[in-house]
Amino acid sequence: MTNIHGIAASSGIAIAKAYQLVTPDLTYTAETVDNPESEIKRLEDALEISKQELEKIKAHTLKELGEEHAEIFSAHLLVLGDPELINPIKDKIKNEKLSAEAALDEVAKMFIEMFESMDNEYMRERAADIRDVTKRVLAHLLGVSFPNPALIDEEAIVIAGDLTPSDTAQLNRQFVKGFATDIGGRTSHSAIMARSLEIPAVVGTKEVTKTISQGDIVIIDGIDGNVIVNPTEEQIKEYEAKSESFKKQQALWAELKDEPTFTSDGEQVELVANIGTPEDVTGVINNGGEGVGLYRTEFLYMGKSDLPSEDEQYEAYKSVLEQMGDKPVVVRTLDVGGDKELPYLDLPKELNPFLGYRAIRFCLENEHVFRPQLRALLRASVYGNLKIMFPMIATLEEFRKAKAILLEEKDNLKNEGHDVSDNIEVGIMVEIPSTAVIAKQFAKEVDFFSIGTNDLIQYTMAADRMNEQVSYLYQPYHPSILNLINNVIEAAHSEGKWTGMCGEMAGDPIAIPILLGLGLDEFSMSATSILPARTQLKGISRKEMASYKDKLLTMSTAEEVVAFIKEKTE
Amino acid sequence: MTNIHGIAASSGIAIAKAYQLVTPDLTYTAETVDNPESEIKRLEDALEISKQELEKIKAHTLKELGEEHAEIFSAHLLVLGDPELINPIKDKIKNEKLSAEAALDEVAKMFIEMFESMDNEYMRERAADIRDVTKRVLAHLLGVSFPNPALIDEEAIVIAGDLTPSDTAQLNRQFVKGFATDIGGRTSHSAIMARSLEIPAVVGTKEVTKTISQGDIVIIDGIDGNVIVNPTEEQIKEYEAKSESFKKQQALWAELKDEPTFTSDGEQVELVANIGTPEDVTGVINNGGEGVGLYRTEFLYMGKSDLPSEDEQYEAYKSVLEQMGDKPVVVRTLDVGGDKELPYLDLPKELNPFLGYRAIRFCLENEHVFRPQLRALLRASVYGNLKIMFPMIATLEEFRKAKAILLEEKDNLKNEGHDVSDNIEVGIMVEIPSTAVIAKQFAKEVDFFSIGTNDLIQYTMAADRMNEQVSYLYQPYHPSILNLINNVIEAAHSEGKWTGMCGEMAGDPIAIPILLGLGLDEFSMSATSILPARTQLKGISRKEMASYKDKLLTMSTAEEVVAFIKEKTE
Repeated sequence: MTNIHGIAASSGIAIAKAYQLVTPDLTYTAETVDNPESEIKRLEDALEISKQELEKIKAHTLKELGEEHAEIFSAHLLVLGDPELINPIKDKIKNEKLSAEAALDEVAKMFIEMFESMDNEYMRERAADIRDVTKRVLAHLLGVSFPNPALIDEEAIVIAGDLTPSDTAQLNRQFVKGFATDIGGRTSHSAIMARSLEIPAVVGTKEVTKTISQGDIVIIDGIDGNVIVNPTEEQIKEYEAKSESFKKQQALWAELKDEPTFTSDGEQVELVANIGTPEDVTGVINNGGEGVGLYRTEFLYMGKSDLPSEDEQYEAYKSVLEQMGDKPVVVRTLDVGGDKELPYLDLPKELNPFLGYRAIRFCLENEHVFRPQLRALLRASVYGNLKIMFPMIATLEEFRKAKAILLEEKDNLKNEGHDVSDNIEVGIMVEIPSTAVIAKQFAKEVDFFSIGTNDLIQYTMAADRMNEQVSYLYQPYHPSILNLINNVIEAAHSEGKWTGMCGEMAGDPIAIPILLGLGLDEFSMSATSILPARTQLKGISRKEMASYKDKLLTMSTAEEVVAFIKEKTE
Repeated sequence: MTNIHGIAASSGIAIAKAYQLVTPDLTYTAETVDNPESEIKRLEDALEISKQELEKIKAHTLKELGEEHAEIFSAHLLVLGDPELINPIKDKIKNEKLSAEAALDEVAKMFIEMFESMDNEYMRERAADIRDVTKRVLAHLLGVSFPNPALIDEEAIVIAGDLTPSDTAQLNRQFVKGFATDIGGRTSHSAIMARSLEIPAVVGTKEVTKTISQGDIVIIDGIDGNVIVNPTEEQIKEYEAKSESFKKQQALWAELKDEPTFTSDGEQVELVANIGTPEDVTGVINNGGEGVGLYRTEFLYMGKSDLPSEDEQYEAYKSVLEQMGDKPVVVRTLDVGGDKELPYLDLPKELNPFLGYRAIRFCLENEHVFRPQLRALLRASVYGNLKIMFPMIATLEEFRKAKAILLEEKDNLKNEGHDVSDNIEVGIMVEIPSTAVIAKQFAKEVDFFSIGTNDLIQYTMAADRMNEQVSYLYQPYHPSILNLINNVIEAAHSEGKWTGMCGEMAGDPIAIPILLGLGLDEFSMSATSILPARTQLKGISRKEMASYKDKLLTMSTAEEVVAFIKEKTE
């Protein structure tokens, strides 16, 4: 048995056989061929088998996981049938007498490089599609088997270098009991996906793909970040016990499902969830969410060839509001640009997209996009407790303009005979330092703040959190971040307004006591973090945490902050 | 006569004939040719003439403006002789029977697109080189004349859409009396260049290239941002008078050259200059600079195939220190990355370079680059009044690490028998919001702050100042910026330290009264802005400006701030 340590990315214990989601060896010897016609035939056969395979996986995914997950295979099938990709391969075989492997590889590499160098998320996804498909065809040419996680049909622990969005889209929760990867951190795509699927995961182990073989028995301990390979009988017993006690803890958490959230000194706070689609609401309710703190509306705009209509949006917003009853639902208006692009909007290519034309900056200049969303929200408002917030607000002028357009559309709708709620709170995301610094001035005009820590931290530290070379500067506990958060909360309270937080930080066990002490009113997190957070909060006193506030705000480094909090909450 | 209004980019009045720096019409009819051989001959002739022309311009520039300015033509000549560019053009003519124009244009476009899509400043410059050279060759193929600003040999006002670095490198100050462009703003490259060359300029006129013809008489009024085309006798007299009075004002400024800087209520502040090379020191002294507030050391590293040696750097630092005598010289350690790349350092390609691996982040991980610079600085320290500052400091840990390396090298040098000054102040640039927010914590450990507003504003507003689509958010007078600046100055003063500013804002007539009121100690600006600033400061009372502080800091928008300051200082 071997014990591998990594980063605990999603809680729980799982024991099952390893399924190696690793690309097989696809190296080939480059040699010229005598008979190009037979090479072309080999290529066509490999394309045909790949096509049949992808059709099968697509149908299977559609049935098991739904349309959204199956989409990636439609994209792969499009690549397989694209003459702009296939014809140059055949030409290469004919003109240069290359083997099918070499011709496929060379042409694919050219397209991949071209698409990847286009500083554009959409084109980079196309590059990823071509890479995925090419590997599959190459595997068939070489006669080696290619992993198809969508076709896993017995209980398994997936072992991979990293899980791409395309991989995770294929995972069937019924059979995939957990996973472990070589790379990634707590906020990497695969980690977030694991928490959303509620399966245990350990990431960033650096070595699982090397150490674990297909069929090994593996224990995933997503609580402490351990991976045990081929455990002893004793270890299996030990972990079964740990799993039992985790399940008991989950049961205890579940008891708090319909409870309000109180601290040990009887102060109430609100625990709400971040969602992306109306389907996510079930998870919010099952996990005892007291509302939706962030409804990201981008999904409505993605994977489409054109803007969603006003009616289409209205149905989605109405569905979320109705499901949530009288509980609050905070909807964020469209946040595209930055790392989120929509091909049909033709957003400009930018040198620094995170500092660019995105979110409210884009919406204020593209009212044909902005107004239908606001109208859809206003029309849906009568079905629940709607709050609207604008993302990426940097100046008061932007907020005033956005709100004026909202009020204009409200008047328009009333004149057209629609019902619109008169109790919609209108707030902003605080994710740009300027807004956090003069929160006091904003607090006079907005109804609420929701602090978006993911962006706020990256702008305040001037460090792209996606850039590994500077990710050490992405420091949620840095005293500057705590000072800005404190400034926002104090500003809101001085004007009788409330402050929420909808970044990753709101669900983080180390941040929660700090945020409680700073007076945060609403914590918005992944649905599965709500019950653990409610349990944690029961054990902390707001008064005690508030007494540390001045000390924390005058500390010099994030390290000091973490050491202090760990000592006080042990 | 026509009157065109634009943005006053560089003060002064100039009257001369217009020189249209506009690319001629280079459209051609794409047609297949019967005799590819003669097309290739035409291409070769055009290449040869272009080559001779470039050699001539290069020699001329070398003689008139020096090596640095002539370098761009060496780059152009390299392009002209590059078989990787030329052979595909010939192939296209041969295989596709294209005309020389079409073949050249198609191949060049392919290379330009490829290089431009590489998110890398160096490669984009190569794209610009290819574009420049292609235009020249195309002009020769079409038999139209191509503007060569380096060859201007009579007094002229340059009229252009925009001036690229390659254009400005060619301008001969002896003959070019001023310029006007269609696009650009006060901080665009051409505007900064005009101020550095001390020639009047009006930018962002939107129409000079359309309205003005070659040989028109043009008046450039760089004081109020006007361009008068074919003026009347009366207007010429009027502007000659205005020019006289401007010269008188310059003479009055010059009287303050050797004076210290006092406000109307007798408070002293320090006016120092930003420089890039030892040659810039003459300008600092001629313009009455009381020191160097920012010596950008990047130029030492640019246009080279490898790192500058410790000795090479030592000579440069020593030269600046000796020239400045006992006046302070603040040297910023290497700030590469972001938009400043060095080909030989192989910096990573980044999605958001402004939020990436640059400046101190790079230096702390590349001590083989950092230590020689620190050693060169320490060795030079005995020749003057050296202060060292580290750029892009986001956390105290970074400052502590950088300072520890500095002290280590100081010990090393002493052990090696070198003299090192014991009075070197060690400070930081404040250009990242986190540092501005917890300046109080930093003030205990650093000797001084220098606020870099260019970056501080772009991070605080989360807006890339180079990105036109969001440049409206680059707001130096935004209350959040003023609050951060105030926080830094108060923190410094509470620990008995001083605060300077070395961004564009420090020399801006609207910002100066505000900064004075906030208590800024040192203003570092373009050398040519020093005397106007000294004159302006003589007329403002620090006490009065300080009395507006609380009001300014609680304002809601940049617009309010500007209106208030204009009213109070009129």
